[in-house]
This record gives sequence, structure tokens and C-alpha cells, in this order.
Amino acid sequence: MKRSALSELGRSTEPPAISWLMEVALSRPNLVSLAAGFTDNESLPLNQTRELLDEILRSPKTGRPALQYGTTAGDPELRKLTAAVSHSQDVAAGAKVAKYTASQTVITHGSQQLLYILTEALCDPGDIVILEDPTYFVYLGIAQSHRLQCRGVRLEADGIDLAHLEQVLESLKKSGDLPRVKMLYLVSYFQNPTGTTTSFAKKVKALELLRRYEKFAGHPIYLLEDAAYRELRFSGADEASALAAAKFSDRVLYTSTYSKPFATGVRVGFGILPPEILEVVLRIKGNHDFGTANLLQRIMTAALSSTAYDKHLPQLRARYAKKAITMTNAIREHFPSQVEWAEPAGGLYVWAKVPDKIKSGTKSKLFQTALENDVLYVPGELCYANDPTRRKPNSAMRISFGGANEKNIALGIARLGGVLKKFL
Amino acid sequence: MKRSALSELGRSTEPPAISWLMEVALSRPNLVSLAAGFTDNESLPLNQTRELLDEILRSPKTGRPALQYGTTAGDPELRKLTAAVSHSQDVAAGAKVAKYTASQTVITHGSQQLLYILTEALCDPGDIVILEDPTYFVYLGIAQSHRLQCRGVRLEADGIDLAHLEQVLESLKKSGDLPRVKMLYLVSYFQNPTGTTTSFAKKVKALELLRRYEKFAGHPIYLLEDAAYRELRFSGADEASALAAAKFSDRVLYTSTYSKPFATGVRVGFGILPPEILEVVLRIKGNHDFGTANLLQRIMTAALSSTAYDKHLPQLRARYAKKAITMTNAIREHFPSQVEWAEPAGGLYVWAKVPDKIKSGTKSKLFQTALENDVLYVPGELCYANDPTRRKPNSAMRISFGGANEKNIALGIARLGGVLKKFL
Repeated sequence: MKRSALSELGRSTEPPAISWLMEVALSRPNLVSLAAGFTDNESLPLNQTRELLDEILRSPKTGRPALQYGTTAGDPELRKLTAAVSHSQDVAAGAKVAKYTASQTVITHGSQQLLYILTEALCDPGDIVILEDPTYFVYLGIAQSHRLQCRGVRLEADGIDLAHLEQVLESLKKSGDLPRVKMLYLVSYFQNPTGTTTSFAKKVKALELLRRYEKFAGHPIYLLEDAAYRELRFSGADEASALAAAKFSDRVLYTSTYSKPFATGVRVGFGILPPEILEVVLRIKGNHDFGTANLLQRIMTAALSSTAYDKHLPQLRARYAKKAITMTNAIREHFPSQVEWAEPAGGLYVWAKVPDKIKSGTKSKLFQTALENDVLYVPGELCYANDPTRRKPNSAMRISFGGANEKNIALGIARLGGVLKKFL
Repeated sequence: MKRSALSELGRSTEPPAISWLMEVALSRPNLVSLAAGFTDNESLPLNQTRELLDEILRSPKTGRPALQYGTTAGDPELRKLTAAVSHSQDVAAGAKVAKYTASQTVITHGSQQLLYILTEALCDPGDIVILEDPTYFVYLGIAQSHRLQCRGVRLEADGIDLAHLEQVLESLKKSGDLPRVKMLYLVSYFQNPTGTTTSFAKKVKALELLRRYEKFAGHPIYLLEDAAYRELRFSGADEASALAAAKFSDRVLYTSTYSKPFATGVRVGFGILPPEILEVVLRIKGNHDFGTANLLQRIMTAALSSTAYDKHLPQLRARYAKKAITMTNAIREHFPSQVEWAEPAGGLYVWAKVPDKIKSGTKSKLFQTALENDVLYVPGELCYANDPTRRKPNSAMRISFGGANEKNIALGIARLGGVLKKFL
């Protein structure tokens, strides 16, 4: 049999970059990985989860529904709590906006599942997604698998460069490609990989721009806001989500997750969506799994309606703040001055940029030497889309203080600094 | 904005039949639903799950990995146990076959997720899936959403009618459509909706037939075996899975689940797949969720490696046996003799066929009258694919003894019998 039976999607889906990095990591037992997007191990809420589960499973009244099928949209109570929590956050961030409701909300198997379903719902092969340059590399995997075209928009300290976004839209208008543009994807809080947070003002202006170009697209162009890291702020003030731009609420697809702020092993994500999109998402999710595992949902319902979640968050933030300081202190001590990086205010990542003449990619001397010195980073090139309108940058590194412990953070940065000094 | 931004898939995915049935159910508070595919509430393993979780979360050594991200393929220990359990089942069913291995195995968010991913991996719009007539209606949702063509193969008491399968293949060969045929989908144990179990002999013969026609397809034609109800046998002997047909092991996609035999709220499914398909499945699952929630997986690992799972199964089987008897006794008492049905040997369903002149569909008088009498069944028509080569049958009902308690099973069947008597 010569030909394969695979579909277009089956044939074109590439192995995720992260698998390769994990294999590399496994092959070197003394390696310090600053690559993985794992969350902090020591602060995982073991006792809280155990107590919540004990409570849930002790009584048939709460235990049975937790071990039974639910509905595709999710536990009604969790949908309600999720809408309320997201609204409170926006209000606390200064927004004046009507309450978000359970009926706008869907609970998913991580927010990743929702990113996948939204892309399925909106994008045909050849369609265009505009995204940050660089962006979350697993999203690039979704786009690649669905044979989408990507256009990158440069980042500034407070989020995407609006002038560049306008330029991209204008050039797509000129080339007649706007009808293919379905959405702008933004990782809006402590962005993976750069740590950048997009200001609320910029989200509103981006929505205005999208609306302006919609008439040439002939259909809505959505803002897909991925707020996965929102809860992980340890300094500065929260920005409101795009949901708070009430005038544009029919264009905002808001996704976030309890995985990062509570436990990645519990894996509960969610979305707050306009009704016509939510309806399609539920139809598609009906085919994916007809509902996220109820036990996981009930843990989050219990965590949010007790004090467990609210007590856990400040501890988690303090922990990441400490690990971030460990990392940045080590960077200051060990990295050559030509490396550019910014102090993180939340999230899990520092983005370090070396001069353009130095390459950092998987095939680069820098990456190989780092590996030989038992330290692993995510090569920046993996976070850039295949955007034919620019050359793919290849001189940055994503380094994470999420998974490694403080000793290894310091050790890893010292090793990486030593390697960088050889190149600079 | 007149046009929508939806993709082909977004536009063509229909609302799942089950949502409509659930809405109907909610609108009538005294309704007895024999429609839902819910599992039995009273036998859900509350105490066992609580104890397992208490044990897992008590120690950081086991608790932390349970609350952390894992790998896309799943917990290595659970993959190993799953391969071993599936192999033992086949050996116990009389098969002589080499061990299945962890490296062939993937853990998924229910087996539904794997059915979805396998279909994505193999099928482009317009491709053909051959399936049982009738079949699992949520699979029909996946096929419909992906704009697949379906061809139904009639069922006999021991599984698909092989002569009809050959006839379908032959006619696809003649019309030049074999290159579009990607797989034969069989729900092989206590099939949803008919309760039919496919004999091992028939699986082997189906694989032989598929292989014979492959040369005209120009690529492999897979047997997708959905063994979701396998563990729910309460009488008779187990049949080996198609995996045991070693000669054809490169063509068998075996999917099953712990949701039904353990807890649907825990939602852990799995697959045992040929390496070239597993690789693609893992790439796609990397984009879906990069791994099933670890906490759920660790519960199943603990259940399988302790006595919890093995102790639970016989209790569960006894419970379903009892509920099945309650249902069949009530059927014997209340249904007119013209209704054809078979004694279930496992699973959750009885399939009842009324004479052809009586319609049972959602718009039928029978269905409406049943609803007015506060009893809900799944209309058989929902379980039939849109196969242009035959008229869709519309005179059967799927009635489930899974979710309802014994009192309601008896009550529901009495009501349904009363309605049927008006029509016969």
C-alpha cells in the first residue's frame, strides 16, 4: 500500500515543537529545563483539592453528579461563578460594564480546547489569523494544522503596535484578502512568550480598527482574547478584558482557564462568547466530548464557592513573584549586557533577546552549546508564525520560571549566562 | 453585517439530537426519560474514588504529578495498565495474541475525543465511512460536521451482515468511490443503540473484506472498533477485540473507555493504535489539549493498580443485570406483541422495533403521544446515517435502563406500553 489514508489535516499536522524539546530534555538527566510551560510544583493545592474532593464525594447529593455526565456547556453553577468572577475582575480593573452571564459561558477541557474549537468554527484552510509576533506556539500548531495563513503584528511594551495592525489590515485590504481574515488572536496578559500585557485602551482601539475593516471583509472579524495568564499577576494593576468594551461585545471571544491559577492537572478552562458563536462552539464541543469531565468542574465550583480559590491565589502569586526575582537577579548577574529583557509583572516567562547577528534557533550554535551545558530554553523562532511578509526572527529565547525550582532557576540562568558570554 | 464569519465546519455542524431531547425532558417535570445514555447513579464509585483521591493527594510524591501537566499520550503507568488490561481481556476471550504495549496506547478525554481525532486524522469532506445501520448517533454528528458520506451496513444478531458489507464495498468499487472510503466504524459490544455484539469471527472476516478492497482504494481501509460498552457484560462470554486478529493489527483502531465501567464524571478514554496512526493522533491531540487532565488519569491508574476497579465491576454488572431484568419484565408485561426486541446481555440499551407502518420519529404521533404521557425514548431515526442508497428507517426506539432507577424504568415502560397499545 503506497498511499496513506490520512486526511489533509492528518497529513499536514506537524509534530508539536514542545514534543521535540521534551525528548531533548529526557535525553540529558542533568539538564535544567527553563523551557517547559509547567507551573510551580510546590504551590500546587494538594490539601485544598483533597479537602474539596472529600467534601464533594462524601455525600451522594454532591458526589453523584460529580461522577456522572453533565451537559456540553458545563456545570451551571460553575458557569455562573465563572461569569461573575470575570465580571468582578473587569470591574476591579476600572471597567463599567453590565454583568456577564452563565448563558454566555462555556466550560472546556482547558482553554486550549476552546482555542481549537473556535478556530474550527471560524477558519477554513487558507483563512487568515492576525496574531502577535511572537505568539503562543501551540496556537501556531492549531493554525498550521488547519492550513491557515498567519500575519504577525509587532509588540510594544503595552501590547500590539496599533499602527502596525492598521498597516497589516490595510495591506490585506489592498491585496483583496480581507474576506479571509477571521480574527485577531491576542494573548493579552503576561503573554506567552514575551510576558507583555496588552492595555485595555489598546484592546478597544484594536476592536475599532477591526470594525472599520469589517466592511471590506464582508463579515465579522473577531478579537480572540486568550487570558490564560491573567490571574498570575504579582505586580502592577490588572487591565480590563476586551469584554468590558461593551460596544464591541459581539466581537469578543474571551478564553481563560483555571489550570494555571489553580492546578494544571485539574484542567478546566472557559470562554465567554457572543451567543451566535457560543451556539456553534457547543455544537462542535458536543462532537468533541459532549462536556468537560464533571469531577474537574465540581472541584472548581467548590474551590470558587468556598474560600479555597481566593486563599490559594495570593500564595501562588507570592511564589511566582519570588521565583521571578530569583530569575531576574540571576540574569542581572550572569547575562551579558547586550541581552535585552524585561522585568516580568506576572505570568511564567522572561523573553530574552540577543543581538540579531546571534541565532538562537534549534539548529543554532547557541542552542546546541546551551544543551551541551545542560540548560534548555525555548528558541524564539518557534513562537513566530510563518508570515510570508517578514523574515522570521531568530534571536530570542523564552525562559520560564514556572516549573523549575529556585535552585535550578539560578543554576540554569548561570549556565545560560556562561554560554551567552561565549557568543557575545 | 450580512455574512457570517463561520467556517464550512462551523456552518455545517448541526445541533446534536441529544440537546433537543434534553430540552424536551427539562420542559416536563414528571417525565420519565428512557432516552439519556447516562449511567447508573446508585452504583457510582463514590467511596472508592474518595479513598483513591485521598491517597493520591495525601503525599506530594503522588499528589503533585496528579495536579500538574503530563504528556500528550498520557500517564505512562496508565498506558501500561490499559494495554495489559485490554490484552488480558482478549486472552480471556480465547485469543492467542502477543501483548499490547504502552507505546501503542493513548489516553484521551473520553473515547469520544478519540473518535473525533481519528476522524479528523483520516477523513476529508466527501470521504466515506461505512458504519452499522443503525449506529451511535454522536458519531453521526462527527461525520455530519466533517461533511462525510456514510454507508450503512445492516445488522444481524451477531453483528454486521457480511454479505451486505461486501455488497456495499462492491458497489463503491463499481462507482469508483472506494478511494474515498477510509474506515468501517463498528460499535462492537452491546452496540449503541441496538445492544448487538459483533462476534470475533465477524470482525476477522470484515478485516479480510476490507483488505481485499484496499487495492482498489489505493490506501489502507481501517476498522475503527468502538468498544465503549465492553465491560458492561452481564451475561454470556466476552468476544475478543479486533486487536486479536494479529494479521490485521496494522488496520485496527481500537477505542474504549473507563467512563462507562467506572465513572462518566471521571471521563478517561483510550485507544490502542497502529504506530503510524498513533503518531498523527498525538500530533492532533497536542493541538486539542496536549494531554488529558492528569488528575483523572491518576484516579484510573490508582483504581486499576489497586483492587478498586476489579471490585467495582462485578457490582456494576450485577446492578445493570437487575435493571435490564426490570426493563424486560416490564416490556413483556406492557408492550404489544408486535413490538420486536431482544434480551440484552450487557450495555445500557434495548432496541424496540414497531411494525414499519408505525413511525417513531421526533415528528411522529407515537413520539408526541409518548411525550404527552411523560415518557421519552430516543427515536430510532436519529441513529441512522444519511445514506442515499436506502430510505431511512423510522420505526424503532432506543430505550435505556442506564440512567433511570428501577421504579422509573417500570413506570416508563408501562407508560410507553400504554401508548404503543393505542397505535397497534
